[in-house]
Amino acid sequence: LENYDVAVIGGGVIGSSIAYSLAKRGKRVVVLERDRIGCQASSAAAGMLAVQAEMQEGGPLFELARQSRSMFPRLAEELKELTGIDIGLVNKGMLLPALTISQVEHLHALIASHKSAGESCEWWSTEEVIRHEPKLSNALLGAMFIPGDGQVLAPKLTQAFAKSAIMLGAEIKEYTQVHGIQCSQHAVVGVHTNQGDIMCDQVVVAAGVWSHGILQSMNLPLTVFPVKGECFAVIDHAPLLQATVFTDGCYLVPKRGGRLVIGATVQEHTFDKRVSAGGIATLMERATQLLPDIAKAEWDKAWTGLRPQTPDGIPYLGRVDDIEGMYLATGHYRNGILLSPITGEIMADLVEGRSTIDLDLSAFHVARIA
Amino acid sequence: LENYDVAVIGGGVIGSSIAYSLAKRGKRVVVLERDRIGCQASSAAAGMLAVQAEMQEGGPLFELARQSRSMFPRLAEELKELTGIDIGLVNKGMLLPALTISQVEHLHALIASHKSAGESCEWWSTEEVIRHEPKLSNALLGAMFIPGDGQVLAPKLTQAFAKSAIMLGAEIKEYTQVHGIQCSQHAVVGVHTNQGDIMCDQVVVAAGVWSHGILQSMNLPLTVFPVKGECFAVIDHAPLLQATVFTDGCYLVPKRGGRLVIGATVQEHTFDKRVSAGGIATLMERATQLLPDIAKAEWDKAWTGLRPQTPDGIPYLGRVDDIEGMYLATGHYRNGILLSPITGEIMADLVEGRSTIDLDLSAFHVARIA
Amino acid sequence: LENYDVAVIGGGVIGSSIAYSLAKRGKRVVVLERDRIGCQASSAAAGMLAVQAEMQEGGPLFELARQSRSMFPRLAEELKELTGIDIGLVNKGMLLPALTISQVEHLHALIASHKSAGESCEWWSTEEVIRHEPKLSNALLGAMFIPGDGQVLAPKLTQAFAKSAIMLGAEIKEYTQVHGIQCSQHAVVGVHTNQGDIMCDQVVVAAGVWSHGILQSMNLPLTVFPVKGECFAVIDHAPLLQATVFTDGCYLVPKRGGRLVIGATVQEHTFDKRVSAGGIATLMERATQLLPDIAKAEWDKAWTGLRPQTPDGIPYLGRVDDIEGMYLATGHYRNGILLSPITGEIMADLVEGRSTIDLDLSAFHVARIA
Amino acid sequence: LENYDVAVIGGGVIGSSIAYSLAKRGKRVVVLERDRIGCQASSAAAGMLAVQAEMQEGGPLFELARQSRSMFPRLAEELKELTGIDIGLVNKGMLLPALTISQVEHLHALIASHKSAGESCEWWSTEEVIRHEPKLSNALLGAMFIPGDGQVLAPKLTQAFAKSAIMLGAEIKEYTQVHGIQCSQHAVVGVHTNQGDIMCDQVVVAAGVWSHGILQSMNLPLTVFPVKGECFAVIDHAPLLQATVFTDGCYLVPKRGGRLVIGATVQEHTFDKRVSAGGIATLMERATQLLPDIAKAEWDKAWTGLRPQTPDGIPYLGRVDDIEGMYLATGHYRNGILLSPITGEIMADLVEGRSTIDLDLSAFHVARIA
Repeated sequence: LENYDVAVIGGGVIGSSIAYSLAKRGKRVVVLERDRIGCQASSAAAGMLAVQAEMQEGGPLFELARQSRSMFPRLAEELKELTGIDIGLVNKGMLLPALTISQVEHLHALIASHKSAGESCEWWSTEEVIRHEPKLSNALLGAMFIPGDGQVLAPKLTQAFAKSAIMLGAEIKEYTQVHGIQCSQHAVVGVHTNQGDIMCDQVVVAAGVWSHGILQSMNLPLTVFPVKGECFAVIDHAPLLQATVFTDGCYLVPKRGGRLVIGATVQEHTFDKRVSAGGIATLMERATQLLPDIAKAEWDKAWTGLRPQTPDGIPYLGRVDDIEGMYLATGHYRNGILLSPITGEIMADLVEGRSTIDLDLSAFHVARIA
Repeated sequence: LENYDVAVIGGGVIGSSIAYSLAKRGKRVVVLERDRIGCQASSAAAGMLAVQAEMQEGGPLFELARQSRSMFPRLAEELKELTGIDIGLVNKGMLLPALTISQVEHLHALIASHKSAGESCEWWSTEEVIRHEPKLSNALLGAMFIPGDGQVLAPKLTQAFAKSAIMLGAEIKEYTQVHGIQCSQHAVVGVHTNQGDIMCDQVVVAAGVWSHGILQSMNLPLTVFPVKGECFAVIDHAPLLQATVFTDGCYLVPKRGGRLVIGATVQEHTFDKRVSAGGIATLMERATQLLPDIAKAEWDKAWTGLRPQTPDGIPYLGRVDDIEGMYLATGHYRNGILLSPITGEIMADLVEGRSTIDLDLSAFHVARIA
Repeated sequence: LENYDVAVIGGGVIGSSIAYSLAKRGKRVVVLERDRIGCQASSAAAGMLAVQAEMQEGGPLFELARQSRSMFPRLAEELKELTGIDIGLVNKGMLLPALTISQVEHLHALIASHKSAGESCEWWSTEEVIRHEPKLSNALLGAMFIPGDGQVLAPKLTQAFAKSAIMLGAEIKEYTQVHGIQCSQHAVVGVHTNQGDIMCDQVVVAAGVWSHGILQSMNLPLTVFPVKGECFAVIDHAPLLQATVFTDGCYLVPKRGGRLVIGATVQEHTFDKRVSAGGIATLMERATQLLPDIAKAEWDKAWTGLRPQTPDGIPYLGRVDDIEGMYLATGHYRNGILLSPITGEIMADLVEGRSTIDLDLSAFHVARIA
Repeated sequence: LENYDVAVIGGGVIGSSIAYSLAKRGKRVVVLERDRIGCQASSAAAGMLAVQAEMQEGGPLFELARQSRSMFPRLAEELKELTGIDIGLVNKGMLLPALTISQVEHLHALIASHKSAGESCEWWSTEEVIRHEPKLSNALLGAMFIPGDGQVLAPKLTQAFAKSAIMLGAEIKEYTQVHGIQCSQHAVVGVHTNQGDIMCDQVVVAAGVWSHGILQSMNLPLTVFPVKGECFAVIDHAPLLQATVFTDGCYLVPKRGGRLVIGATVQEHTFDKRVSAGGIATLMERATQLLPDIAKAEWDKAWTGLRPQTPDGIPYLGRVDDIEGMYLATGHYRNGILLSPITGEIMADLVEGRSTIDLDLSAFHVARIA
């Protein structure tokens, strides 16, 4: 029987980052992925590193996200060196435009709050917005600009984590579905898979929306559910945007080579991966209101991702009570890319029983809900 | 040097049908296709056989279209027998819905005209429409129903023509671009191609929108120009429609397995094959007005076709004056699928110098414009 | 909670056929498919109906296969009528060529055995083989010809079963993964899925290689394991073959439009769906030995399928002991397409508690192994 | 009418590089591409920068190639800065293995010749080869190692040239086919295209194998012909190679993420872009002889490219006699990627009428053949 220190269940961006962190620390790690590395939500993601745009300042996620964002520049270099893969880190900032007076007020309050916390951001008038981004609608009433919120290429990041882990000795088993976790006297001893059993001392469940089935099979009263997001992309020779544009109902993320990703609808509690024609229509309407020239751009394609959500909207990052050696790292919803570097380090800390990250993790404890 | 009776330039549905008709009559035919058989407008088409819906009754195209439509049932059997390919002939009729009072009036007039010409059609009230097609919008004010206008699978039809021609001895040369037609004393003697020269006594130009370049290279004052059409398809397990729905700005064509094709935008004088995001948005809006459940259906994909149009909207079907052995068969705009069977027979008649089709072809003469 | 008479787990060709048979009998059926209908082995299959070529005469599978094969002509009409889908039934026979003297002897013995059982077949000399199939290698030492073994388009058959079931009232739930079967006092009461619970009186497990995980979750000592098969296809304008060619290491199945499917390697106990370069090389060598012109044909694509196998090579078709209302229909290995019609009827009989099929089913009893 | 300084015909790597060089120098440039940027040979290329491996030392191409290779490091930075696109420049050297004694001798002579010319290279024994590249066959008799010959991602390079040109003011017209070059008194005044006429003072034909048709339409006695190359790629999690491996019949180019490109067959004078099954079989056999583990790697896909060749194997880089303002830059055969940077600068020099490149260009004169 194959024998590992740690089995990581799930080969998305979270599982791959955990495997990378563990491999760096010398652990014998195996990643068990039921399909291909990064083939689900991790490759569907737009790759925004939206700390200030997405997180409520002072909330439990904010500090986690801020630290994770700060890890990207060095991480990009490490992964490039190990694998040659460029994760496409871009730091051109994020724009939160206002279309109504109440949005203007909301954004001004947000700016004040961020500034008081020492975070960079500023208000741009319509003229300033158009000067920086001449193709945005001049019906905008201005925008909040956040210089620090960048983006990466999500599929490349996932591949780079996984390949780097392999370079450092980890094993990746694709097409390997976990049927159950094997325990002896309330301690993990192995994992049952469709390819046979694997022995390990510790197991980290990082299977995104598919974590739920594994938790159910252990009779653990923990809930992870899917939130489907539909996206599409267009292409223009002359880039339509420099910065990422972020609103409540739609975001626009400029990628290399004139590609623009537009996301995402929100549909809870479905595993159905189909793109609906209505989802595209809704996004198209919202996006062209912000950036009318999208109508002239070339249609590329549409896709969906199933993002793992928890009942209180906070990821699970921690030990599972009563089962020694079992850990859970999922529920990152639409912040999985952003939070992947720090999640890898946190989980490696937990597995090693030491603490290298200076963060209060109590909000993420698995036991908080059960 | 290779030697043929007839070289057909263009391997779309028109060229393939001509090759099939000529091969049936024992001619040694070669089809010269610059890319792959049926890879352009012929496979982009929705495959409607819209005689009464599309043609003005009494106009020059009407009788041509009516006769061509009547050839499909037997053609479908012939092609199936020769190649095993099922062209998907469906006879569930066509609905022309009215959204405004003036459309109601227009359609009643159309019904009267068709009936007086002995063509079948009838008016359906909103209730009748919904009884037959329960998913259509109940905001419709009724619809004209044409039982005789069916549809086929356009890509299959093109493949079936080409493969049948091969079965009967024709040769198909793909990836063969024509650089010019070689004449001697004002008579065709061969064709220059990127793969070398070919000798032939007669040449039929059936290259759709690419015919223009060939005509230009001969200094012939004949115009064919592209009209780009954007389309998309959705899929639903439970079919959304039985009949084809046809309006001025948009048509809905139900295909097998729950697929629904929605077309088409109209953009003249461009060879740009890109699908625009705005084109999809426009079609989506028109289509959901007729059939709201399209919004719930699964997005399949979008594509474009470049349909060949002439200055007066009538195809060229005839001899080219002053060049013996040269014929032109193009400009079918969005009726290429419908008109392909009769075009094959007409052109074979011309090439053979006899007349099997009982039609006044003067409206299609090439010389009418020059 | 949703309530059905029968839940069928698995939307491949077997599950879809069972749903179709049950829906015809008026049962309220739901099909639970974890991904898309027919997206696994059912669409990877070459679609051979190889009764005499594949089955040992007199063995338990032979009579089952013979009856199932005889159901196809009428089935093709039924499915076409309900859905418009043509399953591509072709009856051009099967050739078993001999490359060695011992194969010649083996095939002569097989012919004698089939003939004594009243099945049609005959020996063709090399000359006869080449006369019928001029592109086959003239190094062949002759071939056994089986006129009755035809073929279908496997993906179309699966779609047609599923759509026909829908037409008759069945519900298909895609992207619905079964986490477990719910029992009360040793009787089925429902199914747990990732989309919530479903109530039903009876459940039929028809999930191919994924059945194993479901059986394990019930602690049932029944084994189903994957046998991966790699395939590829080539295309030629002029069809390379009329009949299907079948040997031990490789088969060649001519499809419409000049497509030829070449299969399949055999690799047990892996869920890894990757095509290996070596698998293609092996098949290519075997295939060109039989049909040298494959080398000149156009490469189309390669793919794999995971075929469900049982320890004794015989499918499970029956009730599961000790659990009232639970049935198993899997393990059809590479005969799933061929056996799908009769499997549908057999399972519908079992579920209804009556017997319309005249066959001794004891060899297929689930309890034979446990 | 649109008016430009220079029209570049062809949007492959050569045309895009020329456009980039001209745009840097302030010229108003338009690129006329009949399909999409880089959609032909430029994206089919494996991207080797094989100066010493490919070129005969002292021959006319050697110095050109050497200078071009030296431009890549700075070019990679420039293009990245302008567009964000990483062209994937890798400098891990090239290995020329010997499988026979006579190859050993040939390579030793090559090493001596290169060394005497001051170029770096060395002989590796079988043990040294295996130490550096443990997966290569130990049946190799050693290999020549060239540290300076690297590689890039060919499709990215083409995109990066084109996007950079756009950033600097060039216009790219895709789907624009040139029907002819318009002259007045033996001087270029414009270009006829399927999208209308364009005025320009100078025109550079850089249309690869499609240049021939343009030259023919001008009655210029210059020959460019296609040499088709078939390729395929495999993927392995653990990279199979570090360096590129180059032999007469086959090369192996390791790309990011474990992808390995294997090329290329050689078939002259065909525009047929189909991949043949036999082409794959041939390459597979040659490649597995060098690197047996290719058989275990995952099959990715196969493709072809049409490389432009000239009668004497030397590209045309120069003015076209008798037509003022007309230039030709094609015939780079399988060195288009390598030679693209210097070709851009040479052609910009010619167009500007000045000389920034220190090279004797007489071997590339267009007039040498006519």
